[in-house]
Amino acid sequence: MNYQKESIKLHKAKGGKLEIRSKVSVNNKTDLALAYSPGVAGPCLEIEKDASKYKTLTSAGRTVAVISDGSAVLGLGNIGAKASMPVMEGKSVLMNKFAGLSSVPIVLDTQDTDQIVHTIKNIAPSFAAINLEDIAAPRCFEIEERLKKELDIPVMHDDQHGTAIVVLAGLINALKVTKRTDKDDVRIVINGAGAAGVAIARLLREYGFTKLVVCDSQGIISKKRKDLNPTKQLLLEISNEQSMHGSLIDALNDADVFIGVSKADILTKESIWVMRDNPIVFALANPNPEIAPDKAKDWGVAVLATGRSDVPNQVNNVLAFPGIFRGAIDSGAREITEQMKLAAAEALAKMVKQPTAGRIIPGPFTKGVAETIAKQVAKYANK
Amino acid sequence: MNYQKESIKLHKAKGGKLEIRSKVSVNNKTDLALAYSPGVAGPCLEIEKDASKYKTLTSAGRTVAVISDGSAVLGLGNIGAKASMPVMEGKSVLMNKFAGLSSVPIVLDTQDTDQIVHTIKNIAPSFAAINLEDIAAPRCFEIEERLKKELDIPVMHDDQHGTAIVVLAGLINALKVTKRTDKDDVRIVINGAGAAGVAIARLLREYGFTKLVVCDSQGIISKKRKDLNPTKQLLLEISNEQSMHGSLIDALNDADVFIGVSKADILTKESIWVMRDNPIVFALANPNPEIAPDKAKDWGVAVLATGRSDVPNQVNNVLAFPGIFRGAIDSGAREITEQMKLAAAEALAKMVKQPTAGRIIPGPFTKGVAETIAKQVAKYANK
Repeated sequence: MNYQKESIKLHKAKGGKLEIRSKVSVNNKTDLALAYSPGVAGPCLEIEKDASKYKTLTSAGRTVAVISDGSAVLGLGNIGAKASMPVMEGKSVLMNKFAGLSSVPIVLDTQDTDQIVHTIKNIAPSFAAINLEDIAAPRCFEIEERLKKELDIPVMHDDQHGTAIVVLAGLINALKVTKRTDKDDVRIVINGAGAAGVAIARLLREYGFTKLVVCDSQGIISKKRKDLNPTKQLLLEISNEQSMHGSLIDALNDADVFIGVSKADILTKESIWVMRDNPIVFALANPNPEIAPDKAKDWGVAVLATGRSDVPNQVNNVLAFPGIFRGAIDSGAREITEQMKLAAAEALAKMVKQPTAGRIIPGPFTKGVAETIAKQVAKYANK
Repeated sequence: MNYQKESIKLHKAKGGKLEIRSKVSVNNKTDLALAYSPGVAGPCLEIEKDASKYKTLTSAGRTVAVISDGSAVLGLGNIGAKASMPVMEGKSVLMNKFAGLSSVPIVLDTQDTDQIVHTIKNIAPSFAAINLEDIAAPRCFEIEERLKKELDIPVMHDDQHGTAIVVLAGLINALKVTKRTDKDDVRIVINGAGAAGVAIARLLREYGFTKLVVCDSQGIISKKRKDLNPTKQLLLEISNEQSMHGSLIDALNDADVFIGVSKADILTKESIWVMRDNPIVFALANPNPEIAPDKAKDWGVAVLATGRSDVPNQVNNVLAFPGIFRGAIDSGAREITEQMKLAAAEALAKMVKQPTAGRIIPGPFTKGVAETIAKQVAKYANK
């Protein structure tokens, strides 16, 4: 099937993917007086007195905004605000379908960090939580950091944390499958230091992995490098304790795990060969992974995960974000903390009762994923 | 019925008034591949190539934003962003129920003119049209003017133009009922020079009435006044050609029509008595009109309109804005012009086949109002 062509047909036939509907009837003067003037002054005054009532008296108080500046959309790159809307509507669809949430897609006519922060702050009272989406690195880091500080509702850049959570869940089970039990002994190489790579490194470190090395297109991120942006410099505080220097293949020497959020087909036979026995490979480049699945098998990869839906172990953000936002909103959390993300990853890993090389994470349609994650996330929420 | 109390109950029971739902099914991997990755790249690229496809390939391209800074909400005043949300959700409900439109309520955490303009510009690509709502005068004028200039989608401040359109429709029929046929001979006094008063004056002038006088709390707006803000100074170009000066009652001397968007009970017996025979009174102050309906009758008012739903001739914006936005969106209009507003008012007036003193405008539930207005508005749209 030509997915793009069929998708265009579907979008045209439906006129986009969302509809916003009234939950109240407006069939007579009484209905009108209660939904609107003069009765509506009642809920207005209640909220003016006590802002915590916003959550129960408005739909906005339980609605997630999906916000993008259209600068790093799928594999398409910087396609701008309007062209990115089908992705944002898609995200809102998934919030609705997987977690029963109302979600508004917003695309921004600016790619300036300050403007983005101010704009989102100014519209924030309209929402219960904010999912940042497809914003280019490194500004995505600053935007998220500033909004987290300045807003009292959960803000999460899903390209970072959604991906990191699903990766950690898969990794927990992949280590079980390959009988690696000591976190401190597991050597992990992350290739790619954009939004996803940085967040994966941080979350894995938070979980307790200490032997992390991150590479970008210039090789290992090390103290010797003079070309590091501030985000990459910060990575040195949590990675490369052994002060390695060199290329990706130097990093892979004796590694247990490769996690790629980079480019198609960069893993050679030698790259796998220099890794420890039974290597774990997460080849998450989209649409084509860092290693073709048949080659991975031939070359001895023990557990393979990709972004593809046609081979086992698809690392798909839809496993995480609907449940995370649902849990955050249900619990009245003011932010999404590291603890909540770890709880989400562990809950997701546990959904697979008997992990095997062919099943380290649930599929996107496994029943109960969002509910299970929501419950765990809510448990760890700072209210 | 205690409307406010019942309204609080309704809002609580329903959890607010809107829901955002998916129009596409997501039950299997194919659904997911079409609604989201990888298929969604198809509609993204179509829109990148040709922005006009936004309207057919996204729901956003047909969605109206209802935006407020919470500074002039109903009769409640400056209650702020969150407390104003029930009104904005109500407006979105009416867009949906009366015109079948999807509508997103947005409340802003700023009351600064520049910030409001920048914020709305930045989120504008997410919508097909913008309904500004409950923003205090005089900044509402500047905000609307600037956004109209800078955006290529329709922007309308409903407190101004929605009200003006319904007033003009009612006035057209009230003049018929009282057998006034010469526009040039009709003397009209508007009391109130905020958002609604100014817009009413402008639209009536545009329609062809030349004998307009506008009053504010200090009396007639005249050249002799030294306390006029820029908006009120501009009013002098279209009103008070006779250079009247004095109080409201001076203005009413020999007037045919009083239009009040001001305060309860300010019309005395004398005010009516000094007007011409068979005076027309639009007493639109909310919740209590400028003259009590029973007194109006006793004192000889020929045609009375109010904002109240329990007496005849309710001037209610819901008669106008759903059809106007529907017509603008259907026709792909880039702005809502004076011609479109006049067309809406005339269409609304014509919906009453045989106007009488007790029925100069349709009721909010008269069938076909939004459709009729939408059709006329679309006819006059600048594409």
